[in-house]
Amino acid sequence: MGTEKEAVVVKGLEDVYVKESKLCLVDGEKGRLLYVGYDIRDLAERSSFEETCYLLWHFRLPGQDELETTRRGLAEERKLPKDILNLLKRLPKTTVPIDALRTAVSALAAYDPELADDSRDANLRKALRITAKVATIVAAFHRIREGAEDFLRMLSGKAPDPLDTKIMDVALILHADHSLNASTFGATVAASTLADLYSDVVAGIATLKGPLHGGANEQAVKMLLKIGSPANAEPYVEKALARGEKIPGFGHRVYKNFDPRALILRDYAKKLTQRGGDSTLLDTASAVQEVMLRNLQAKKIYPNVDFYSGVTYYLMGLPPDVFTPVFAVARVAGWAAHVMEYWQSNRIMRPLDLYVGPTDAAYVPIDRR
Amino acid sequence: MGTEKEAVVVKGLEDVYVKESKLCLVDGEKGRLLYVGYDIRDLAERSSFEETCYLLWHFRLPGQDELETTRRGLAEERKLPKDILNLLKRLPKTTVPIDALRTAVSALAAYDPELADDSRDANLRKALRITAKVATIVAAFHRIREGAEDFLRMLSGKAPDPLDTKIMDVALILHADHSLNASTFGATVAASTLADLYSDVVAGIATLKGPLHGGANEQAVKMLLKIGSPANAEPYVEKALARGEKIPGFGHRVYKNFDPRALILRDYAKKLTQRGGDSTLLDTASAVQEVMLRNLQAKKIYPNVDFYSGVTYYLMGLPPDVFTPVFAVARVAGWAAHVMEYWQSNRIMRPLDLYVGPTDAAYVPIDRR
Repeated sequence: MGTEKEAVVVKGLEDVYVKESKLCLVDGEKGRLLYVGYDIRDLAERSSFEETCYLLWHFRLPGQDELETTRRGLAEERKLPKDILNLLKRLPKTTVPIDALRTAVSALAAYDPELADDSRDANLRKALRITAKVATIVAAFHRIREGAEDFLRMLSGKAPDPLDTKIMDVALILHADHSLNASTFGATVAASTLADLYSDVVAGIATLKGPLHGGANEQAVKMLLKIGSPANAEPYVEKALARGEKIPGFGHRVYKNFDPRALILRDYAKKLTQRGGDSTLLDTASAVQEVMLRNLQAKKIYPNVDFYSGVTYYLMGLPPDVFTPVFAVARVAGWAAHVMEYWQSNRIMRPLDLYVGPTDAAYVPIDRR
Repeated sequence: MGTEKEAVVVKGLEDVYVKESKLCLVDGEKGRLLYVGYDIRDLAERSSFEETCYLLWHFRLPGQDELETTRRGLAEERKLPKDILNLLKRLPKTTVPIDALRTAVSALAAYDPELADDSRDANLRKALRITAKVATIVAAFHRIREGAEDFLRMLSGKAPDPLDTKIMDVALILHADHSLNASTFGATVAASTLADLYSDVVAGIATLKGPLHGGANEQAVKMLLKIGSPANAEPYVEKALARGEKIPGFGHRVYKNFDPRALILRDYAKKLTQRGGDSTLLDTASAVQEVMLRNLQAKKIYPNVDFYSGVTYYLMGLPPDVFTPVFAVARVAGWAAHVMEYWQSNRIMRPLDLYVGPTDAAYVPIDRR
């Protein structure tokens, strides 16, 4: 019984190791990020999202044939059942895009002929199917709402501008995994009951939604738009810090140095402004970063990936409420990888509450309360 | 960096305290279960599911007016938007009922005018709405599949037989909360990112689905039906144990004694067989329990709630694949209670992986692999 022994509550599970993994190393001190040993900077420059999926699901880079099979598989599985497209069309237009994704993936389960097959091979096929379809769902709902085709073409590598395609691919690589972040942990908790991969991905999406997690890049851009210009950065940030407010897109439980993903995306954001168009947003971001580092670098608070992914997506023309779904398009690869790895030595996640309430309340009938 | 210090992996988070709570004490040694200090046996006998919801959401029993308001609120909120009913009708008839529930709750978010309001009052109203509608969704999908009305009437207290209504109410009370079980933990992980209550409940449903958790009562009944008669119990169980198989419905991470909920439901299952009908299933369950206790009581393995809830629901005429959704009809009250309590001192759940993979893989271009 919990209250009888010396019990320590580990809020947020900080510093608690929940499982072993060969997938992802976040070296927060050095600002390094590895997938299966490969430096994220190499992968961003030289790999592709498809290859990264293979790496995370098989713990090694694919050969030419294996990559081709993965690529073809993802392409073939993009198509949605007509019923799911209709479901998306019938959702109220006010549905938050990440909620639409959560609903559609949940509904998709019924269309997978291997839903109840829990063999590793079947799960690899399900991972491929879900990863392919998450991208289509996000693009389809965006198209239904806005009539825009571009994003789908960006995701499928057929955008008119190769820079957009390259940046989207890099963003997907950078977001594919990040060890036990909250949504991957949420997916793993679901998986630990042996709930199928669709359930686990739905739990991941539900967890990703929060503004402290996948919603952070949307918050960051909204703040930058509110600040409006580089000149406003200093007074805004100083005032917010004085009020004890958190600045979205800064700080990370694990990184105590620059987040390598932020640096890569900042470079691409620069390329987008160089291609033409307005550099106000990026300049404002730089000004905010400068004020933040001046105030908080001593406390090891740096811009994180959300700060620059938001800017980058915005410059690519994506509306802020699609940022979190785009995060999911990438992270679904990591959710599937962690879940499949965890199942190799599964144990149900069943921590404890420290009970601090009464222990002997006497039930009083309602007429005597 | 994880690998530099002495790192211990706590598989399944066994014995780790994640948060304080005043909601639920599971005293596994004595076989006692308390909600906010009240013994579950008193609540099962003298309270109602509506009153239990109030207790979990407000940390005290309601007065007459408060109970009446809760009851009326739940009744008024039962009705589903027509679109959600249509969504359920359009799902493939092969959709697993718990998946239909997960999808419908996810879609419901868009119809809640207070979705983005994170005040405690708004969340209490959302908790009421979701709890009311989860029951209707489960009943509605069941009706759509089977044309049966009875279950809805059972849930709403209008069944022809008061015994069915009483048992359903007791079952809902018994399943309303159980401290940090996997699904409540999953809901809390989602909530810790400040994802809204619908997201959290969806994560809870996704996690509940697994056969190691909410799916266990379905597994238990299927096993009993396979065994078929009391005489077959001993050879079946002995053989399964000899093969090292787990017997569904037995053993619990926390209970090292009889699960009080199992004892209560066993009594009601007896009443159902006394009312008339076949006692084979219950007799088979008793025979299995006898063999199991003879073999495993020394190891403190007892029948748990899933063993007798399955039998009870089956005797009430519910098909096995609806057992987990019925579990959700009750547990949603606890999910909401834990989430709202956790938000009072929120911290994002971000544990660690112990990285055991390579740390310096060199990227080799595909044509040289």
